[in-house]
Amino acid sequence: MLIRAGYDIAFETTQAVPMLANLSIHSSRNKDLRTAQRIMTTPDVPIYDYVDSFGNVCTRLTIPAGGITISCGFVIEDPFTPDIVNPDARATPVEALPDDVMMYLLGSRYCETDRLSDTAWALFGRYTPGWELVQAIVTYAHERIRFDYQTARPTKTAWDAHEERQGVCRDFAHLAITLCRCMNIPARYCTGYMGDMDLPAIVGEMDFSAWFDAYLDGTWYTFDARHNYPRAGRILMARGRDATDAALTNTFGPVVLTRFDVYTDENRVPF
Amino acid sequence: MLIRAGYDIAFETTQAVPMLANLSIHSSRNKDLRTAQRIMTTPDVPIYDYVDSFGNVCTRLTIPAGGITISCGFVIEDPFTPDIVNPDARATPVEALPDDVMMYLLGSRYCETDRLSDTAWALFGRYTPGWELVQAIVTYAHERIRFDYQTARPTKTAWDAHEERQGVCRDFAHLAITLCRCMNIPARYCTGYMGDMDLPAIVGEMDFSAWFDAYLDGTWYTFDARHNYPRAGRILMARGRDATDAALTNTFGPVVLTRFDVYTDENRVPF
Amino acid sequence: MLIRAGYDIAFETTQAVPMLANLSIHSSRNKDLRTAQRIMTTPDVPIYDYVDSFGNVCTRLTIPAGGITISCGFVIEDPFTPDIVNPDARATPVEALPDDVMMYLLGSRYCETDRLSDTAWALFGRYTPGWELVQAIVTYAHERIRFDYQTARPTKTAWDAHEERQGVCRDFAHLAITLCRCMNIPARYCTGYMGDMDLPAIVGEMDFSAWFDAYLDGTWYTFDARHNYPRAGRILMARGRDATDAALTNTFGPVVLTRFDVYTDENRVPF
Amino acid sequence: MLIRAGYDIAFETTQAVPMLANLSIHSSRNKDLRTAQRIMTTPDVPIYDYVDSFGNVCTRLTIPAGGITISCGFVIEDPFTPDIVNPDARATPVEALPDDVMMYLLGSRYCETDRLSDTAWALFGRYTPGWELVQAIVTYAHERIRFDYQTARPTKTAWDAHEERQGVCRDFAHLAITLCRCMNIPARYCTGYMGDMDLPAIVGEMDFSAWFDAYLDGTWYTFDARHNYPRAGRILMARGRDATDAALTNTFGPVVLTRFDVYTDENRVPF
Repeated sequence: MLIRAGYDIAFETTQAVPMLANLSIHSSRNKDLRTAQRIMTTPDVPIYDYVDSFGNVCTRLTIPAGGITISCGFVIEDPFTPDIVNPDARATPVEALPDDVMMYLLGSRYCETDRLSDTAWALFGRYTPGWELVQAIVTYAHERIRFDYQTARPTKTAWDAHEERQGVCRDFAHLAITLCRCMNIPARYCTGYMGDMDLPAIVGEMDFSAWFDAYLDGTWYTFDARHNYPRAGRILMARGRDATDAALTNTFGPVVLTRFDVYTDENRVPF
Repeated sequence: MLIRAGYDIAFETTQAVPMLANLSIHSSRNKDLRTAQRIMTTPDVPIYDYVDSFGNVCTRLTIPAGGITISCGFVIEDPFTPDIVNPDARATPVEALPDDVMMYLLGSRYCETDRLSDTAWALFGRYTPGWELVQAIVTYAHERIRFDYQTARPTKTAWDAHEERQGVCRDFAHLAITLCRCMNIPARYCTGYMGDMDLPAIVGEMDFSAWFDAYLDGTWYTFDARHNYPRAGRILMARGRDATDAALTNTFGPVVLTRFDVYTDENRVPF
Repeated sequence: MLIRAGYDIAFETTQAVPMLANLSIHSSRNKDLRTAQRIMTTPDVPIYDYVDSFGNVCTRLTIPAGGITISCGFVIEDPFTPDIVNPDARATPVEALPDDVMMYLLGSRYCETDRLSDTAWALFGRYTPGWELVQAIVTYAHERIRFDYQTARPTKTAWDAHEERQGVCRDFAHLAITLCRCMNIPARYCTGYMGDMDLPAIVGEMDFSAWFDAYLDGTWYTFDARHNYPRAGRILMARGRDATDAALTNTFGPVVLTRFDVYTDENRVPF
Repeated sequence: MLIRAGYDIAFETTQAVPMLANLSIHSSRNKDLRTAQRIMTTPDVPIYDYVDSFGNVCTRLTIPAGGITISCGFVIEDPFTPDIVNPDARATPVEALPDDVMMYLLGSRYCETDRLSDTAWALFGRYTPGWELVQAIVTYAHERIRFDYQTARPTKTAWDAHEERQGVCRDFAHLAITLCRCMNIPARYCTGYMGDMDLPAIVGEMDFSAWFDAYLDGTWYTFDARHNYPRAGRILMARGRDATDAALTNTFGPVVLTRFDVYTDENRVPF
């Protein structure tokens, strides 16, 4: 299936402000592109990409005084099959984890494994390490947190979300990730486009979504504590230890976000 | 100057526990070795190293039921000159920072840049970005925190240390790092051996030390908010965004540390 | 199955000579170690490892004037199953190859794809791209070259081996690799220990072996143009584009190899 | 100084042909861009970049049946100062070379160090390792080879160029690189734009140029055996062990190059 996706984002600023951003699809999806994916800016400014250690395509540019509009659109092929469910997947023992997976057991800015470890073992110590355990964690996070856009804040951590019991999709992900790591299951944060066949695609009323991967039986499996059921059409943009590594934009100075339109549309592809 | 350094560490455990550890000097110091640096264990268990994206030599092993002793000793050449002081160093503008330095501007587990940003700008906004600014931050952290081994805890963050006003060397480093990042100065956490010419070298009464690097004028400069004066004889073991990336040991199960002897000795080298 | 393996190598030299060497098992096999794998030297000299972009563990040391003995022994777990045969494996189309596999289509020191391309297409153009094609290439190389230790020389390339029709195991590998690349099948050179159940294990009469991997259907498969049948017990030490990347030792000055004992023994493991 | 540079390249083909190309400036120059650098194709096809281990920005696309035009233009800031001359630079001893520099001492496809080693030591053994030695090698290569476009061929190696005594800029580079490596001086191949203040800039009559870097005293210095004097305005596109790693395009199927216009122009920048 072909999906057309893209965004239109604008910032206002009174001075030049350097920006580091994840504005492209993740490098692991490059081969699925069916058009070029060119980031255009108004005004046209110098811009370049590099790839970080997570495979994220990081874009650097400086927002000129006055502001900038950044837009991108592309067509990508996607199987549009729901997330794989494999109840037989077992946890890989820590000593058998690949070296480059080990970091996903440690704490990070929004995932305070040290603070939630006792809670995790009390809640989940009785589960067999594997799919059943991760699913129990996902359901717990799904039920623990009430979705509420009003309570979103950049400083909210897994601990905070667990205590306050409300949050947005990134908080659901951070809580589930943290609990997985406490139980010695590597987990990583993911963000990207996610179309929704359940709903009419309404251009301009979408946001990037957050979900996570858990490492079981030598494979990364996708889980979504916000929705807690298998979804189709995820187009990964960035991943990492938590939202710090996968932030859409980091700006190093005062800016105001004045437009944020994101769209994915699996129906309107003109092929 | 030749320095003899090493450690002797023991853990007790009732079951096999996987471990990930930074037990070697940092790869950037390998060329200064004047002997081999072999990690020996009792009992003798499978053990291997990999190098992470920070250049840290990470060791993986499984502590067998009953426990383990890990020891290492080596001789290294060191200029034993105090940390460089360069008051003329200017901050590199964010847009000119190398791509691989950008991550050291972001938040991390123990460095909540988002929570300390307002404090940082209120305190340090009037300084010229560069050496003077970093030194002001170091002095502030040095004076803000009272050194107290009793208050050490693994969950303590820069924010916590700032509020509680007490901590150990890693808390001094985390606070200074966080304030630097808030002011758009990249900063990274360092840990390693540090001899002390001021004091008689007393084998067995030393600990690994923590300090940090700030990036100015295209170079990483060493700062030490715990001591707040230039020191000689630092032998880097690990560095990263904060203590998470540079932990001496991460154990994935219950263990008890029963011995922790670290030594550096610039006098007793038999050459 | 447990395999005991190791080596005992000695060099004589009249002056200090720097060395770069592949003296450890490949990092992909580290988890299979059942003992530590420590490289010991006589005399005891500074020595350290780094890992190159191929995952090879590269050792640096300087041979002191007079010479050195280097030895290592370890026990490793190995399935001891023959190389996988999968006649259904299809070639991955070039446009679908992962980015980090592309380099294995290009020429290299001992694999002159540009010189052998016409030969390759004339001989193998009629085969279906996939297992059948690679197997035809392996059989061709196996029959084209007569094994002859006397004709080994460090400068011999795939082209040379094809013309001269004699060589050693590395020449068989280079020729097959080159022909695979000409046909748009990525191929990489491998070297390591290889036990032989067909023969009594005779310590001191073994050499490191060379074989290669071809990339089909998203997987690297092992092929051996020297033997041309599936073998068990390969313990990879190094791999790369050709023997340049996987040389046992590179010495930067005049040395004489005075001992070279390699052993693997699947029978004598004392467990 | 601002330089406007770019290219316009066309291929004809009767079938779809995958391509791997170095069509962007090297990542080390990204910060000097004063406009975006977007590669456009006619027809518009899927295209993406990755960065290889040399920092080269590698582009992947498939030329559709019928052919393609690829073009790019950008403005870059350049000091336009001649290559640095530092006769005091000493060779870094092999044992002190950084780990990631070691590969530039080894042989590669077009640089047969093993075949030219005796020649190198006979010719240059008497020179002090350092600038003087590299300059002697550059002068030797410059004089040994007669520039002749007619004799260019993709299979020509340093050895071939040395024997045939004619070649193009890449052959000058390969010969000098090989001789440097034989003398234990790391050397790497470079290709890119090079403006020429000596000549009127004639759009469409330029080619990419090849030069090389030698590693002395901890720094890579630029040398040019084709011209043998310091030049200004080099804009690096790709570098590596030799022309294999830095090929403008690798095509995996039959294509005909029908246009190849490259320009740099330091006079016509409209700023």
